Amino acid sequence: MKKIICIPDSFKGTLSSAQVCNIMEEAIHCHFPLCDVVKIEVADGGEGSVDAFLAAVGGKKITVTVNNPYFEAIESFYGILDGNVAVIEMAAAAGLPLVSGRPNPLETTTFGVGELILDAAKRGCKQIIVGLGGSSTNDGGCGAASAIGVRFLNSQGQVFVPKGKSLIDIADIDLSGIDPMFNDIEIITMCDIDNPMYGPKGAAHIFAPQKGANPDMVILLDEGLCHLASVIQKHLKLDVSTIPGGGAAGGMGSGMVAFFNSRLQMGIETILDLVEFDHLIEGADLIFTGEGKIDSQSIQGKVPIGVAKRAKRAKVDVIAVVGTIGSDIEAVYDLGITAIFSINPEPVPFEIAKLKSKENLALTMDNIVRLLSIKPQK
Amino acid sequence: MKKIICIPDSFKGTLSSAQVCNIMEEAIHCHFPLCDVVKIEVADGGEGSVDAFLAAVGGKKITVTVNNPYFEAIESFYGILDGNVAVIEMAAAAGLPLVSGRPNPLETTTFGVGELILDAAKRGCKQIIVGLGGSSTNDGGCGAASAIGVRFLNSQGQVFVPKGKSLIDIADIDLSGIDPMFNDIEIITMCDIDNPMYGPKGAAHIFAPQKGANPDMVILLDEGLCHLASVIQKHLKLDVSTIPGGGAAGGMGSGMVAFFNSRLQMGIETILDLVEFDHLIEGADLIFTGEGKIDSQSIQGKVPIGVAKRAKRAKVDVIAVVGTIGSDIEAVYDLGITAIFSINPEPVPFEIAKLKSKENLALTMDNIVRLLSIKPQK
Repeated sequence: MKKIICIPDSFKGTLSSAQVCNIMEEAIHCHFPLCDVVKIEVADGGEGSVDAFLAAVGGKKITVTVNNPYFEAIESFYGILDGNVAVIEMAAAAGLPLVSGRPNPLETTTFGVGELILDAAKRGCKQIIVGLGGSSTNDGGCGAASAIGVRFLNSQGQVFVPKGKSLIDIADIDLSGIDPMFNDIEIITMCDIDNPMYGPKGAAHIFAPQKGANPDMVILLDEGLCHLASVIQKHLKLDVSTIPGGGAAGGMGSGMVAFFNSRLQMGIETILDLVEFDHLIEGADLIFTGEGKIDSQSIQGKVPIGVAKRAKRAKVDVIAVVGTIGSDIEAVYDLGITAIFSINPEPVPFEIAKLKSKENLALTMDNIVRLLSIKPQK
Repeated sequence: MKKIICIPDSFKGTLSSAQVCNIMEEAIHCHFPLCDVVKIEVADGGEGSVDAFLAAVGGKKITVTVNNPYFEAIESFYGILDGNVAVIEMAAAAGLPLVSGRPNPLETTTFGVGELILDAAKRGCKQIIVGLGGSSTNDGGCGAASAIGVRFLNSQGQVFVPKGKSLIDIADIDLSGIDPMFNDIEIITMCDIDNPMYGPKGAAHIFAPQKGANPDMVILLDEGLCHLASVIQKHLKLDVSTIPGGGAAGGMGSGMVAFFNSRLQMGIETILDLVEFDHLIEGADLIFTGEGKIDSQSIQGKVPIGVAKRAKRAKVDVIAVVGTIGSDIEAVYDLGITAIFSINPEPVPFEIAKLKSKENLALTMDNIVRLLSIKPQK
């Protein structure tokens, strides 16, 4: 074993991607001390994504004063990766922890996220990656759009910054105020869910309750997003109502498409592109990936599957190490996973098992690498 | 992969050794259809051992009428393996199910076990393997000894067949009545525990309660075995008091040594000898073994360890597949286990996990074999 790549997702609720990377590396070096281990932290666009990208690719962290979800000045941040690519996690300006004690998706805005994007653009970044996730907002991205010059007008022709409760008041949208520099900037939105903008599976019904919305508020928010979609359709000639992921981050998925001319992309695809994964795996003997739970039901957006698809093209084997192997996983092998191992050394409930996640992962990795050390077969 | 040997212990309470063998074979053949898979069922000396040996080695089953634990005639059985080796499981003549509803280790005898041994001897078997385990008795093997001609005398010089309650009455032992044909017969006793004949860790204190003894009976039984040891010491000039395993099957371990000139041997060693394991593994690419739980605490007598020790000498890799990986297993690798995998795809308690033992083992084996299918490494 001369070169092994470790690119695991986090084990939700127990281990970060960085922790998994380190445990994998240690096990590999224990048995193949000279092996070149390439660790790639995986971010999902939510909190911690900027740090993960900076760790995986290198770059610097920028701090900026922007508006928080209640239009109060806060110090926020984003990353500029080597290669002049900006990475923004929306949670840094519109995250739920920022409204701790007063969550209310009727009143909160993504304005600060737009300010981060604008700052990156002004610094000359030609590619801006925006990670959705962990938001406190349900404004369809209208706040962020306002920050870069999009004008939302009410029926009296007055410009305003729509929030969750006032989406319903939008009568017209004017994109002409967007700085022309954005014409040369590619904006990519990382989004790992496929919920649509509105409706029973939409942003409000599925995610607003965890942002503090009661049932009545959910209905208002859903109607607001529905109205926004129709205004976008009417004035921008764009149907964002059915985009998978349009409902991410309180409808910001659709807003990124409509106002930022962005494409929505799975987090793992974004990372694989950024690290030039196809190039990276040339000469690799093996790839380790992993996640909390692998199954065939939710292949969409999964880190191991994203990794496996590219590895398969390059004919590199992929071993997935997971907390739980779900049922009906046959499809996973077809997509390029060579073998899957779960980390449970004993049959105990998750509440007990999670206390030993590190040890359990280390033990499993150790045994897999021991097996790989077997002399080449006759 | 041209030749793989499967030699797993049972997964206690969930899967028999035969079931594990079959699941292993199926997984191997799924990915290496032309591989020669050698399956060796492992017996521990208890119920099912005769069938397991017959399956592993070949031979025929003999039925014989003997005395049950209450001196009632029953149809019992043993096996004669190819090569004229008899295999007896004592449970077939003195097992706990034979006294169902009336267990009482003060009153039960191993006489029938002696009759099975005698029958095998009369048929010309030159090696007789006696599996201890699952007994209802605590007679120190005196019943079995009586059946082959050993005479136990009380203080009045009267011959009697000692039972648990009357061990204390033995004043003398006379071996002269044993048929001389036994001089040419090797008797091997399979025994996987190391409890001594008597004392706090002895047969009565540790095992008699599960044979129906109350605390008072336990004390009587323990005193009986202690007395038997002293009589053996006095008249046969043999110290059986500290033999590891002497306390197996109600002290029958010690009785086999004293009256049958037998040696006690771990079940796995017996099986490995019988199947000529050292010869069998020549040319093997790999060995699969397994058990319910592997750990360093109880290495003694463990199937995977017995297998690994011999495999290590022959430089063949051993993969252990287990229900539970215990703590502190480093020693296991030193003894010859290459890698260990547990079969738990998810963190759930044993009560739930055990319902899916077959599927879980099959899944784990499938992934191990998938990993083995990886192209030979550079």
